[in-house]
Amino acid sequence: METPRENLKRRAEIIFRAGLAAVDPEACVHRHLHLEGDRLMVGDVAYGLNHLGRILVVGIGKAAAAMARAVEAVLGDRITDGLIITKVGHAMPLKHCRVMEAAHPVPDENGVRATRALLEIVAAAAPDDLLICLISGGGSALSPAPVAGISLADKQATTRRLLACGATIHEINTVRKHLSRIKGGQLCRHANGASVAALILSDVIGDDLDIIASGITAPDPGTFADSLAILEQYRLQDSVPGPVKAYLAAGCTGKVPETPKPGDPRFSRVQNHIVGNITTALLAAEAEARRQGFHPLVLTAMLAGEAREVAKVLSAVAREVRRSGHPLPAPACLLSGGETTVTLNGQGVGGRNMELALAAAMALEGASGTILLSAGTDGSDGPTDAAGAFADGGTCRRAKALGLKPAAFLADNNAYPFFQALGDLFITGPTRTNVMDLQIMLVDA
Amino acid sequence: METPRENLKRRAEIIFRAGLAAVDPEACVHRHLHLEGDRLMVGDVAYGLNHLGRILVVGIGKAAAAMARAVEAVLGDRITDGLIITKVGHAMPLKHCRVMEAAHPVPDENGVRATRALLEIVAAAAPDDLLICLISGGGSALSPAPVAGISLADKQATTRRLLACGATIHEINTVRKHLSRIKGGQLCRHANGASVAALILSDVIGDDLDIIASGITAPDPGTFADSLAILEQYRLQDSVPGPVKAYLAAGCTGKVPETPKPGDPRFSRVQNHIVGNITTALLAAEAEARRQGFHPLVLTAMLAGEAREVAKVLSAVAREVRRSGHPLPAPACLLSGGETTVTLNGQGVGGRNMELALAAAMALEGASGTILLSAGTDGSDGPTDAAGAFADGGTCRRAKALGLKPAAFLADNNAYPFFQALGDLFITGPTRTNVMDLQIMLVDA
Repeated sequence: METPRENLKRRAEIIFRAGLAAVDPEACVHRHLHLEGDRLMVGDVAYGLNHLGRILVVGIGKAAAAMARAVEAVLGDRITDGLIITKVGHAMPLKHCRVMEAAHPVPDENGVRATRALLEIVAAAAPDDLLICLISGGGSALSPAPVAGISLADKQATTRRLLACGATIHEINTVRKHLSRIKGGQLCRHANGASVAALILSDVIGDDLDIIASGITAPDPGTFADSLAILEQYRLQDSVPGPVKAYLAAGCTGKVPETPKPGDPRFSRVQNHIVGNITTALLAAEAEARRQGFHPLVLTAMLAGEAREVAKVLSAVAREVRRSGHPLPAPACLLSGGETTVTLNGQGVGGRNMELALAAAMALEGASGTILLSAGTDGSDGPTDAAGAFADGGTCRRAKALGLKPAAFLADNNAYPFFQALGDLFITGPTRTNVMDLQIMLVDA
Repeated sequence: METPRENLKRRAEIIFRAGLAAVDPEACVHRHLHLEGDRLMVGDVAYGLNHLGRILVVGIGKAAAAMARAVEAVLGDRITDGLIITKVGHAMPLKHCRVMEAAHPVPDENGVRATRALLEIVAAAAPDDLLICLISGGGSALSPAPVAGISLADKQATTRRLLACGATIHEINTVRKHLSRIKGGQLCRHANGASVAALILSDVIGDDLDIIASGITAPDPGTFADSLAILEQYRLQDSVPGPVKAYLAAGCTGKVPETPKPGDPRFSRVQNHIVGNITTALLAAEAEARRQGFHPLVLTAMLAGEAREVAKVLSAVAREVRRSGHPLPAPACLLSGGETTVTLNGQGVGGRNMELALAAAMALEGASGTILLSAGTDGSDGPTDAAGAFADGGTCRRAKALGLKPAAFLADNNAYPFFQALGDLFITGPTRTNVMDLQIMLVDA
């Protein structure tokens, strides 16, 4: 017989899986790309197939192969050429596109070779051709294309130094785009005026086009001068490799071209479509929660902050539901999505979702009829085989009965063995998609 | 002419002040204590004035004098005797109650003397008397009553050692109650079976009766054995003063009486009434926000967590309102209350509300029509003259124009001068009440 806790846990999982299904890369592409008579519709944009030259397909990212499968299902032989770069282990058999695998998250020479081949396809485009770009998370590391005179090692050393200095991801991206031949909208520079239809599965808070996979089809607001200023701000101008400094300096004096800026006429031929994001998953989860009889509330699709602290806020909202019926009455399903962070102080094994769940277990201790599932939509949380974990008002009691101290596991960033011992890991295996993380908090009546 | 920003700022302040007015101590007592013919109603409980013996009034806490004023306004000469202990500077002239001032947050000998006098009044009660207890935040430090053989210095040394070891406030309270003659429900032990009506202004998340002002009228779930176990857990058994260790050991063997436990028959004569709390303030703020045309949403009255991380979550919800109309459409007023924490790493001047506001300013950077007011309902935030601060999507831009780097001020826990330079401090002066902190986030349409 299923206990009330098991029932709630199962229902949370069903809601999560409904969210996941909505961001399946093939489903996302099919929703945004289909034929209407002799027209190819990409979102609201129509391409007359009779007037169109060749159709070329390129893709980067962990979901790129699955996205390409959907494009092949629709366009089949109409595809002239195609190349997909995906993470090792994420390839799928395709009929009209080559698939090349490269390393992630640290780029490798396979990525450099594959990106060179991808840019050759782009460079073969003619003005009446259509270039379909399939972009998903991980695409940045999978498509290293250092500018002439700079090695992959030079770029990596620069990134490492920026990371160590506490530069923001925005600052790091500004510099990286100015050392690349493809990032920062530069793919369009190679396309000879062909139409570009980018289908983008977003793994970034706010869906900023210039950030997802370093924005190969989006204008770059940053400049060479910004890049040099960032190096100076962190006092790195003398510690980055010489060719990097020299190249950025050359850019500042106009000796090498700037990345394309907003308003650049080349973008008039480019259409960027977000085909799926965390909001897609949240709205599908919301619908499933409603079907199950919960009052659903999407708190945010932009969740950020230190995982263990975020957990306290989400738990405070859940406790309030039980206490006063605010922000909405039980049975309630509070939904949020985004990407939290973890500051490592311990030596344990875990991930941001499991850590959030562990802190929530502590904040929810004693609360009845309340369960949280926090998990990554890519099916992996930190360097583990779990996607996340379940936490409820009885988690800490059950842990203590096993001799496990929740606070000690949290202090050691060691949430994986904690939830493993309790049987409360959430394991999905690879999901082939990634739109960051989803939190589902159920508060029963 | 008022700018849109000034308008939003002013409206946030009006909403805050509506919340504040609802938790004015006199207003709270008047809502819960009044005459109906010859009956005194305290909440739903009726006391027949003709059958009642004397009415005694005692009070502890920062709001105790204001609360007593309301009781005096209702009962006047019917009050036989009374004594109020409040923080230095918080006294008010009373007709039927003596007012004594003591030190807060570190207790002093004035507090010890005042508490001795207070317990004398309680001990003079007869079974047909009514003892009205007025309890508010700060009451714990203001009513030190160490047990025989233990000095105030011994108690303070014990608290300091527990704090330094990272013991939770719950653990510290367990020990403290077992070194006190009044805390942990022990006031009722002195009352000779008189009826006790406690009117409580809560400054604690969740309104736990045994935590507010150390629960002088509430059963104590903790034991002497728990207290000793806590000292052992933090390896303090040999570093706390000898008399403390000896007293707790004596308690374990039954040589001194336990604090009254849940179910103790003495509590059948005790009625505890929460007359005001953060929820009272939130609901009044919600009503005012609705009057102003905002869609209000109370997220939680139990907000907790590191202030700068909590700010990211609240900001993520506000940004989502603008982006997608979730969790509710603009114009929206997101309301929360509770008590965040600040981990000090810097040397600056600030408080948890100003720090939350500074982190929110960074998380909201660029967001239009969005403003946050976070402030303490007691009118003071940290060791400053401000109650809190305003943050909006333009705060960081304006700061940078003045040469101020928001991240540097946050890193130094230095939010006060940051907001002072911008003219965005929120200064109310002492409000005579305290129900923790209130956050008002307005998102204009």
